[in-house]
Amino acid sequence: MASVDVPVALLGYGTVGAAVNRLLAEGADEIERATGHRLRVVKALVRDTGKERGFPAADGVVTTDFAEILEDDSIALVAEVMGGLEPTGGYVLDLLRAGKSVASANKQLLARRSGELFAAASESGAQLRFEASVCAAIPVIKVLRESLVATNVHRVLGIVNGTTNFILTRMETGATYADALAEAQQLGYAEADPAEDVNGADAAAKMAILATVAFGSRVLVDDVAYEGIEGLRPEHVEAARSLGAVVRLVGTATLVGDAVDVRVGPALVALEHPLASVAGAFNAVMLQGDAIRELMLEGPGAGGLETASAIVADLVGVLGSSGTGFLQGDASWRTLERLPPGDLPASYYVRIEVADRPGVLAHVAERFAHEGVSIARLTQHLVDGAAALDVVTHTAPSGRVDAALAGIGSLPEVRQRPDALRLVVERGVQ
Amino acid sequence: MASVDVPVALLGYGTVGAAVNRLLAEGADEIERATGHRLRVVKALVRDTGKERGFPAADGVVTTDFAEILEDDSIALVAEVMGGLEPTGGYVLDLLRAGKSVASANKQLLARRSGELFAAASESGAQLRFEASVCAAIPVIKVLRESLVATNVHRVLGIVNGTTNFILTRMETGATYADALAEAQQLGYAEADPAEDVNGADAAAKMAILATVAFGSRVLVDDVAYEGIEGLRPEHVEAARSLGAVVRLVGTATLVGDAVDVRVGPALVALEHPLASVAGAFNAVMLQGDAIRELMLEGPGAGGLETASAIVADLVGVLGSSGTGFLQGDASWRTLERLPPGDLPASYYVRIEVADRPGVLAHVAERFAHEGVSIARLTQHLVDGAAALDVVTHTAPSGRVDAALAGIGSLPEVRQRPDALRLVVERGVQ
Repeated sequence: MASVDVPVALLGYGTVGAAVNRLLAEGADEIERATGHRLRVVKALVRDTGKERGFPAADGVVTTDFAEILEDDSIALVAEVMGGLEPTGGYVLDLLRAGKSVASANKQLLARRSGELFAAASESGAQLRFEASVCAAIPVIKVLRESLVATNVHRVLGIVNGTTNFILTRMETGATYADALAEAQQLGYAEADPAEDVNGADAAAKMAILATVAFGSRVLVDDVAYEGIEGLRPEHVEAARSLGAVVRLVGTATLVGDAVDVRVGPALVALEHPLASVAGAFNAVMLQGDAIRELMLEGPGAGGLETASAIVADLVGVLGSSGTGFLQGDASWRTLERLPPGDLPASYYVRIEVADRPGVLAHVAERFAHEGVSIARLTQHLVDGAAALDVVTHTAPSGRVDAALAGIGSLPEVRQRPDALRLVVERGVQ
Repeated sequence: MASVDVPVALLGYGTVGAAVNRLLAEGADEIERATGHRLRVVKALVRDTGKERGFPAADGVVTTDFAEILEDDSIALVAEVMGGLEPTGGYVLDLLRAGKSVASANKQLLARRSGELFAAASESGAQLRFEASVCAAIPVIKVLRESLVATNVHRVLGIVNGTTNFILTRMETGATYADALAEAQQLGYAEADPAEDVNGADAAAKMAILATVAFGSRVLVDDVAYEGIEGLRPEHVEAARSLGAVVRLVGTATLVGDAVDVRVGPALVALEHPLASVAGAFNAVMLQGDAIRELMLEGPGAGGLETASAIVADLVGVLGSSGTGFLQGDASWRTLERLPPGDLPASYYVRIEVADRPGVLAHVAERFAHEGVSIARLTQHLVDGAAALDVVTHTAPSGRVDAALAGIGSLPEVRQRPDALRLVVERGVQ
């Protein structure tokens, strides 16, 4: 194989952009040996050319002018590592229309505009790759698209936000939510403004992308029902422990017949479930399918080098599949309906704070029964003259459980609408 | 994309072969949609055409004549799922020389003859793929080759034999080795002759293949020092528990400077290590590298459909990279030396049965000190007038630990040469 020189442009030259440049420079021999191509960063779009960078670009590389990339016919490969929706989305669209392939790390962009972007790519024959947009170095997009092509994946479970997982594992050893969040910020796991992490929006975008690839039907971030971890209290962590479980922010994408349900929320994960052992800022994605039973991928879900590693794999992958034109187009080829949110069957843990009066248990039980929700386990704790009921339900449609909780919340003996957390116990294994 | 009809031949039509045919038939639409190619099994080589099969082949497909495949110019893709070294190796070589690409599930063949096979493939322009030869549906070869191309993986840790993992997890809940093995056989996890599983040979072949791909230097099964689980006793499982660990058959491939060490043996895995949670017949491979820290892939490491899923991915992958000619040649491009077996540093758990006499502890400690092995932890148990010492060493070259054990074994107060099991605690995470 004769070596081919491949000029690469970067949109953005922050932590991830500098790491991409570093990996391409330091790994150039390795990449050339494996592929016959020598990738070299020739342009990097920035807002401020004067800023200091961790791995400085060569002279003349940094530019503030997008046209220097768009109009350079020698550049056919671009890594988008600038983030944000605009002007990024417009840039990516222009590049794809111009026939330049793009590897993007931008989950919010992909989870909102992938249809339009893939249509542009398809028209010009360019590729749009997005491994880095979900869980950094964990190659879950490649595995779903290329390794599981005939496997009928019907369920994806994921811990796809490292910040919240770090906070939750710290809360297990007694930290408060506030202290754990402060520690995550100090260690660089959480942004100064951690809202998108802790409210579940970040995880929702990733689950939308995973569901689209797994089920072949477009799921946008707005199709994902999400809830964050801001409302979690030490009692939830304690109840989880007593039930042989841990609290995790879990994303699930489920194919139910011809409908899709994608949601993100705090859940109790049984200790024997592989997701329970995902600790600290790590991410993990479990894929369940007919021929594979279940496959789990675990690793760092964030970080400059980790994200850059996925970008580099995508850049190399574009070269490796150019001309064969497959496995890399729009993953969405059909339109599945959304499952009505209340229809997804699940088992729940419910905590109910009640006055310790005769008859209250009967009233609570009657409300569950009225909605057809049967109870697998119930424990009553006495706390300062009041009582708390820990209830585990059998599997029931979530709408029925919600209705039961509304009814229970309106009972005079009940202090507030009860909390409910899903239980994650299902395995793809018999 | 116009649909292209792709005739496929199978060498072997047992459990895996029939499952490949089934996945290609039932997944034909899915594969065509993703790739534009329609794969169809047209020939399947068997020894006995009269045998009943789980998913019967179409009329005229089954044959006992290898020439019907080799000489059919319409067949460019072959799956080798017959196993064994001969005549299989000769067939695969002939096919590759004839320019037909082969996806093989045969770990023993790959771990012995990959140099010769890849040379033949390279000469004719065919591809040899082998995802199915290691851990069935877990796509570790693809991830190593394609996702981690610039990542400098320096260590691979694996639980790569499901039979032994099943036996070891059963022993944790009190089963004897013999009972656990019998149960594994009854459930179909272990062969009637389980020798290659329990003595470590099966895991050694898989680790040789993984090391070759990870480090780019050929490692044959004969380069792997391996030990099985036949000698494990309930005391080891008990000692592991008291040390906060579990016993697992662990394969490790380590790059130490310019030398390679690959070994398989029972080891104590700390409970907080992700490999400790791999239960039952599942497999897991952990990859540690500079840019990714660590990545773990876990799933079923055996089974007809699971193995077939990897074969199908490889067949599709050949089509997807034809003409781009990269990432799929011989992974071995350099020749690293083998690390002398005694040089690999590790921490060990050692169990020493001694007479309960004054001075014995000093003699044992002196032997460790003499070899420069320092002790991290020591517990003495009294058992029926004798004593057992549980020792955990700090990291030391394994040859020094061996020498200390030989010295201890020759002490008059020591009943037999002590057992030593490696401790697995290292993470690619700070």
